[in-house]
Order: sequence, then structure tokens, then C-alpha cells
Amino acid sequence: MNQSTNRVPVPTLERMATYLACLQELDARGVETISSAEIEKLTHVNAAQFRKDLSYFGEFGRPGIGYSVPELARRISKILKVDREQPVILVGAGNLGSALVGYPSLSREHFRIAAVFDNNPSKIGRRLWDHEIRDISTLPEVNREVGARLGIIAVPASAAQSVADLMVGAGITAILNFAPVSLKVPQGVVVRNVDFVQEMAVLSYHLAV
Amino acid sequence: MNQSTNRVPVPTLERMATYLACLQELDARGVETISSAEIEKLTHVNAAQFRKDLSYFGEFGRPGIGYSVPELARRISKILKVDREQPVILVGAGNLGSALVGYPSLSREHFRIAAVFDNNPSKIGRRLWDHEIRDISTLPEVNREVGARLGIIAVPASAAQSVADLMVGAGITAILNFAPVSLKVPQGVVVRNVDFVQEMAVLSYHLAV
Repeated sequence: MNQSTNRVPVPTLERMATYLACLQELDARGVETISSAEIEKLTHVNAAQFRKDLSYFGEFGRPGIGYSVPELARRISKILKVDREQPVILVGAGNLGSALVGYPSLSREHFRIAAVFDNNPSKIGRRLWDHEIRDISTLPEVNREVGARLGIIAVPASAAQSVADLMVGAGITAILNFAPVSLKVPQGVVVRNVDFVQEMAVLSYHLAV
Repeated sequence: MNQSTNRVPVPTLERMATYLACLQELDARGVETISSAEIEKLTHVNAAQFRKDLSYFGEFGRPGIGYSVPELARRISKILKVDREQPVILVGAGNLGSALVGYPSLSREHFRIAAVFDNNPSKIGRRLWDHEIRDISTLPEVNREVGARLGIIAVPASAAQSVADLMVGAGITAILNFAPVSLKVPQGVVVRNVDFVQEMAVLSYHLAV
């Protein structure tokens, strides 16, 4: 379901984000160094996998000493580009959109919801948390000011492709899509799909008969 | 992030759910047969991958004719165990929980939200869509009646592990976890994590500098 545009495997990138969250928590608690065995205990990713994942990005840690928590956190943040503020636009001001805007860890990683859009006249002009809900038709114009390259689609399946087209036309190059539909996007645009039913079906497969 | 308990790769299972959604849509439109090339066009999964994924589960399709849409849909439904009703319990009656309960395609795949729980006294007894929000402390007792083996955790990170423990104690063996935390569960319990920030970080990595 996930399209990658370069050679680092997507599961590695997913785990890098997991390590980062773990390291940030340790850093906040004042922990200074950590071993790969301790990372394994905290993240349930095995130590060899952790070291292999890091090896895609250079040299980390010191034999017999381990990894400096603040340094590793800083380097992973930089690799994932979450060390700088990233404006994000969201289309779909329903329950899911509301949950996303209120999600506390988005801002921890410097993702800043810069604008929220909907096409429902009864929502436009109202507020979602501290954002005014804007008319979807103003997206291109608003994004000329905002300059977001990241977009979140939280609309019904039937509307998702047209929202994606609008986003791409407005300069969005990376889309998180919650609609249960395969989006068609030009080369160079990355899409990640979160499909709740797909997740449930994979779990269901694993149930004993 | 995903734990599998047998030999079919998790990405294959994810794609099986994608094929199923596509086939159901075709079936609803009265399409009777389909080729792997057409599947590729509709799902953006390449035809060779599609055939390889199916090969984990037996023989499908006929050379020169293709795949019977209703038959393939029925067989994939059976493989993923979404051909039967599966009761699901949900903990966390916030915006995300509300979005999940209202998600139209859950019921299409026979996932039935059987009970909704929260620990917030101001929510308990109120309604989330057509469900009464129940006191989390009644979960074991309620699930003795409901018999759900699937659970969804939509609570803040700080509460997620204790909710998981409660679920596992009540007979849940497969958990969809939306809290940004690694859950510790006994062997035999499958967890899938949906972490929005992790998804965003993977996208962010792919942005041009």
C-alpha cells in the first residue's frame, strides 16, 4: 500500500519513527545513554534489526558505551526531517479530522496543521479546535500562502481522488490518505494509506477459527 | 510494527484486503470476470505481485479467462475471515472512537462494534452513535456476554497498556492500537499499531529538502 521513492525500506523508516519516540521519552526523563538491548526491551524491535536500520544512515553509537540518547534523537529527527516545522493541510473536518487536529504528538514532531478545509457549507466558517474551517475551493489560494507540502485526506472515499488532485495541483507532494480508496497521483508524489478496515481484516485473519 | 503469527507476509494480507475491497466494488457493479492486469490498474499493485499474493492460498483463476469476481471475493473474504460477523469492542469514546464507530466500511466487512467503553464519568451512560458508552471497569463482564476477540484501543498513550491488559484478560486476542506506544501482550495476542505521527514522519522523510 505504501509507495517509496528511494532505497531505504519503508518498514525501516517506520521503525526509525518508533525509535525516535522512544528516545524522546528517555531524553525527557534525563536518560543519557542506551544500549540496543534496552531499545529492544522498550520498543519490542530486536537489537539486530535496530542496528541494521541505523546502518542505512551512517555510523551510530560506540562499542561498549552504547548510544547517546540526545544525539541519536537529534540525528533521527534530522533524517526524518521532523527537526523543522512542517506545515500540513487537512481536508475533512469530521470526527476523524477533529481527532487528527487534536492529536498531541503531531506538534511534538513539529507537524503544524496550517489549514483545515471542508466542502460542507454548514461547517465552513465554523471552528475545529483553533482552526477556522475553510471552503475547499480556496485550497490552492490558501496553500500559496501556507506553502504546505504535506496533506491529510480525511474525507469519504467518493471525494478522496478529487481532493488529492486539488492538493497535488496546489503543491502537495506527500499525502496521508484515510479514505479507503487507491489514489492516482503523479510520479514524485508519495501517498501513505491508513485503512482501518484493512487493518481489521489483517487482525481478523490471525484469529483462531 | 506489526506482529505476525504465521508464514503469510503481513504486506500480502494487507494487499488481500485491498483486492477484496476492489472486487466487492466490481461485483456491486455487475462485473463478472477480471484479469490481473485490470486488478493492477484498479489497485496499483502490479499483476505479478497480485498472482504471487494469491499463490499463498491456493489456485485461483483460469488461464485466458481470468478471475471470477464473485468467486474470488468470496474466497478472499473466507481467507480473511470477514465472511462472518465479528464482534469488536472499542475503548475510547473520543473523536477518534467516534470516527471509527461511524466508519461505513467496517460493517461492510462484518465487523460489528458490540460495545464502547470509556473511563470518563462525564461520558459514561451517554451515547456514541447508537451505542451506550459503558464504564471501562465493566469490560470483562460485558465481554463475557459479547464474546469479542477483536478490540480497538483509541485512548491516550498513558492509558493504553492498562486497557490492553484489561482486554487480554477479557479474552481479546487481536488488538488495533491507535495509541502511540508499544504494547506488551502475551504470546498469541496480535497487535497492529496505527500511529499517525509515525505515518507523517515516513512521509516527511520523502519530502525534498
